[in-house]
Amino acid sequence: MQAVIDPGLKQFLAESQARVEDALQHWLPATTTQPHRLHQAMRYAVLGGGKRLRPMMTLASARMCGYSGERHKGLAACVEFIHTATLLHDDVVDESSLRRGLASANAVWGNQASVLVGDFLFSRAFELMVADGSLEVLAVLSKASSVIAEGEVLQLTTTNDTETGETQYLEVIKSKTAQLFSAACRIGALVAERPKVEEDALETFGMNLGITFQLIDDMLDYSAKQADLGKSVGDDFKEGKITLPVILAFRRGDDDERVFWRRTLEDLEQSEGDLEHAIELMIKHGALEDTVERARHYGAIARDAMGIFEDGDEKTALIDAIDFCIHRAY
Amino acid sequence: MQAVIDPGLKQFLAESQARVEDALQHWLPATTTQPHRLHQAMRYAVLGGGKRLRPMMTLASARMCGYSGERHKGLAACVEFIHTATLLHDDVVDESSLRRGLASANAVWGNQASVLVGDFLFSRAFELMVADGSLEVLAVLSKASSVIAEGEVLQLTTTNDTETGETQYLEVIKSKTAQLFSAACRIGALVAERPKVEEDALETFGMNLGITFQLIDDMLDYSAKQADLGKSVGDDFKEGKITLPVILAFRRGDDDERVFWRRTLEDLEQSEGDLEHAIELMIKHGALEDTVERARHYGAIARDAMGIFEDGDEKTALIDAIDFCIHRAY
Repeated sequence: MQAVIDPGLKQFLAESQARVEDALQHWLPATTTQPHRLHQAMRYAVLGGGKRLRPMMTLASARMCGYSGERHKGLAACVEFIHTATLLHDDVVDESSLRRGLASANAVWGNQASVLVGDFLFSRAFELMVADGSLEVLAVLSKASSVIAEGEVLQLTTTNDTETGETQYLEVIKSKTAQLFSAACRIGALVAERPKVEEDALETFGMNLGITFQLIDDMLDYSAKQADLGKSVGDDFKEGKITLPVILAFRRGDDDERVFWRRTLEDLEQSEGDLEHAIELMIKHGALEDTVERARHYGAIARDAMGIFEDGDEKTALIDAIDFCIHRAY
Repeated sequence: MQAVIDPGLKQFLAESQARVEDALQHWLPATTTQPHRLHQAMRYAVLGGGKRLRPMMTLASARMCGYSGERHKGLAACVEFIHTATLLHDDVVDESSLRRGLASANAVWGNQASVLVGDFLFSRAFELMVADGSLEVLAVLSKASSVIAEGEVLQLTTTNDTETGETQYLEVIKSKTAQLFSAACRIGALVAERPKVEEDALETFGMNLGITFQLIDDMLDYSAKQADLGKSVGDDFKEGKITLPVILAFRRGDDDERVFWRRTLEDLEQSEGDLEHAIELMIKHGALEDTVERARHYGAIARDAMGIFEDGDEKTALIDAIDFCIHRAY
């Protein structure tokens, strides 16, 4: 099943993406003080691709709200810089637990570059926001940054803990992922100076879209679809991350199965065939398809939040993002 | 030689320090979402001591400028949070290069905690600034953060490079250290809404005080005084950091000596007695005492920048900070 995209919409999306790339190029500092390697690392981190979902949310939200100025471009770049910074720092936090005691010189240089380039992008984002001059936008994005940092910490507390419940998991993905989607959308309404009800609607849209996105992402880590796309499968399993497919399989499983989950995810004692067995258990209990079902639920909330806006290209693009997230599963 | 401190001033300084500790306690978040260990790490990082020079600069500058409100306390906390965040991230960057290939599980957990707690404090600082509501203050501190991040990167380019000159070294310490001192002082004038000439004077004071502080800090890494205080000597040497004592000794030395510096600091081929030999060369060429002389020069500029302010306890305290920095050398 593939989302059928109208050719006009397709062109609109391509143009939005091009606008995001322009903004990132434009706002990324090209200082002479940066050593070649770090500057390369930064350009690679920021310009090396990515779906650009978050900054596109800002651009589309602003235009849907009737904004006709240029501020949304710089703010879209801020959103992507914050996202990239958190990805870079995540690498350090995750690699650390993965490569315990096995840090290579390369992994070490990776940490240096990840921390420094992340800090640089984060600071740069705040400078751009200050230059934009809106305390409201600053409040939304500094709150988001703070919640993301808390979410990373919260995620550490659930990692390797098979007792983690769905509510706790939801808190983690709301903080570490959905909050920035939500902020990205809300600032679209803010620059357009729309009434609070529209700000709130876009915030709800973004939050639920973000949850949808992360649920599917967590499902894909156990899916053959991901393997088809050339991406590795089972990274979360190797690290003992407790995501919804695990939570559902664990709770629906019997005592023997729970022994398996505890050994592999709590004690990280994994041997060949364990990942395949985990996937079998998930399929047996419908954990993967029900994760997609849960995603559909949040996607539906996101869709309904858009009801108060007039129809148009941007609204279609935003709603299409929900379908895009869900269709990644297939 | 010990700075003679007037008893009234001593009491004033003790009160300022207590006010900083109160502010840090007050603004440090006590969320329930944080796991015990990370929360402990954060409290330890923020509340575990330190000279509190930077936040005290903010408090004293604001009061000297006649400010009678309470905003300076939260902003002083922001300054210290930013400082602590950069220290934590520095640890990751520095430890990485030091413990190349030898990361212990403990060092690994250290990286996780350092990155996460640093990000958390940094985000928290921006939230507090946004709540304070002054775009001018935000501009000063977001600029400082950005420059610090650039300074860290710049420092990496000079590490292990014995060709580094004094000008380049000055750029590094201005960015990574003095910029935050300068911002800490400037926001004192900003909250008091003083004329730009006073803002500029406090910025000059802070910048030159910060340079003074770092010069002495870099000298102390090769000094018996540091060993007397129970701190380790030679950390910069071990990492191959190029600081002013090295630059002066290298430039004043002969070819044989330069071979020594290149072997120990560029190639990091160090054996027993090398640190002692490095210190001997520095003493032979007057590199340590001339680093202190350079520090006195910047201290003098800082002192003169204060000339436009009326005498009073706060002004005395700020000027006393210059003497405090220089007298650490003895």
